[in-house]
Amino acid sequence: MGGAIGMAARKVGAATRVLGVADHLATIEKARLLGAVDDATMDLREGVRDADLVILALPVCMIPEVVQAVLPMCREGTIITDTGSTKAAVVPAVEKLIAQFKAPVYFVGSHPIAGSAKSGIEAAGEVQLVGAPCALTSTANTDGESYHRVDEFWKALGMKTLRLSPEDHDAVLARSSHLPHLLAFALMGMQTERSLQLSGPGLCDMVRLAGSDVRMWTDIFTQNAAEVVHVLKEYIHDLQEIETVLELLTRTGTPGAESARERMFRVLADARQRHDKRFAEESAPPASHQSDPDTQVL
Amino acid sequence: MGGAIGMAARKVGAATRVLGVADHLATIEKARLLGAVDDATMDLREGVRDADLVILALPVCMIPEVVQAVLPMCREGTIITDTGSTKAAVVPAVEKLIAQFKAPVYFVGSHPIAGSAKSGIEAAGEVQLVGAPCALTSTANTDGESYHRVDEFWKALGMKTLRLSPEDHDAVLARSSHLPHLLAFALMGMQTERSLQLSGPGLCDMVRLAGSDVRMWTDIFTQNAAEVVHVLKEYIHDLQEIETVLELLTRTGTPGAESARERMFRVLADARQRHDKRFAEESAPPASHQSDPDTQVL
Repeated sequence: MGGAIGMAARKVGAATRVLGVADHLATIEKARLLGAVDDATMDLREGVRDADLVILALPVCMIPEVVQAVLPMCREGTIITDTGSTKAAVVPAVEKLIAQFKAPVYFVGSHPIAGSAKSGIEAAGEVQLVGAPCALTSTANTDGESYHRVDEFWKALGMKTLRLSPEDHDAVLARSSHLPHLLAFALMGMQTERSLQLSGPGLCDMVRLAGSDVRMWTDIFTQNAAEVVHVLKEYIHDLQEIETVLELLTRTGTPGAESARERMFRVLADARQRHDKRFAEESAPPASHQSDPDTQVL
Repeated sequence: MGGAIGMAARKVGAATRVLGVADHLATIEKARLLGAVDDATMDLREGVRDADLVILALPVCMIPEVVQAVLPMCREGTIITDTGSTKAAVVPAVEKLIAQFKAPVYFVGSHPIAGSAKSGIEAAGEVQLVGAPCALTSTANTDGESYHRVDEFWKALGMKTLRLSPEDHDAVLARSSHLPHLLAFALMGMQTERSLQLSGPGLCDMVRLAGSDVRMWTDIFTQNAAEVVHVLKEYIHDLQEIETVLELLTRTGTPGAESARERMFRVLADARQRHDKRFAEESAPPASHQSDPDTQVL
């Protein structure tokens, strides 16, 4: 994610200079090759001391400790933001650190909702930020001017920003992202050798998220466990209602089976309609992937 | 699916002549334009009377009635197959019809496991048959020579064929295809306006199957309700176990939370490993979609 943001910021000129910080030399070299940074360093102090904006593209559980390390290195007025997928635990923790150290810096939580199941600098070119949503958190401690500048930064990269509280963020993301990831891991876990042998693009899509980084997702589920439980219960309840309809459908030829069929049709049709309303455009292949009609023939 | 098979058969020369049958003139014209057929007709009798192999690419619930219509039109020795996603109801029904009418034809059930969430002749070019699995059903009534010829046909198109009973087919496909579709419809159904606003490529993938044909999937869930209930119960059970782990994770700082974290990590790591073993290669973009590295930069 850090690499993708660097690339995008340099492309649109959203930053005078993009300085990357990484803990491996190989990452730094790849970031340079990809054009994701103007320069890069393994020295955290060098990386942040002249920065107007510090973006922490890190696993959520590392953010508070890195903020603590960074605070004494920043010059006055530096704005710190992040890219983490959970906010309700992280944002208050960071705000507490800033208050505790009386650091002259500002923090605004960000979550650019883009990315690939793959991680690392190699995936930077695959992350599509333009047109994607970016959640920004706002609390009683948020500095208005800093919020505005972080908001402008993401907008300059073409993202659609949205302001909400850390708690609301985690409740919404549990539904739109954390639960879907959990479902993919669970679906992958129940496949058999034979079912994998007889599977097509449908299953492949539905388990793609099970190829995500395991440590990062253990962190996310840990940090947002309560909200994930909430939407998981709701989902299980919905599945149990569908199970009842399917049970009726097994009684072929009964009036119950006929009305169950209608009910199943309505459940699917409602979901299909909602799907098409939101994703109809995105389901068409992006223009850059369209090939000559002739080459699409098998 | 019919269009995709026609294209592939013509490309590799798996048929001397591909004659398409459709019920709309527009479909026929598109099939011709796409090169999916040598010729096409709206007259079923004309379409099947000289055929060595009749492929019924139809919704599963229509197959028996169309077979009944086709039987008196076929010449002796014609082999009939299909492309349906359920087999346990359809195959015995078709075999019964053939016996009842003492028709001099043979039936072998097929299920090429490929395809797109989109349907219709327009999607024909997107269906990737080469390398995809194709299930063939075998029963006490199956004619060995006909089975062999149908098997050779799919293999000529580059598919990996697999023999199994109609019942085994439906049990396996409930797990690898029908349940995943059901999960996508249910996940789409529980999204809110806000969660859709704050969603990324993860959700988009996980609900792609909710863009599938509603009538076709009502049929499939109806025909395979018992097996879908079976795997749905198993999946709900797995989700409930994960829910227990998440409940423990909410008790931050307790020993229970720490061991729950390890358990969550193992569940995810196991799924990730199984995912990568099966799908690692497929998760790379297909060669035809790879663009110049420079154009992948945002």
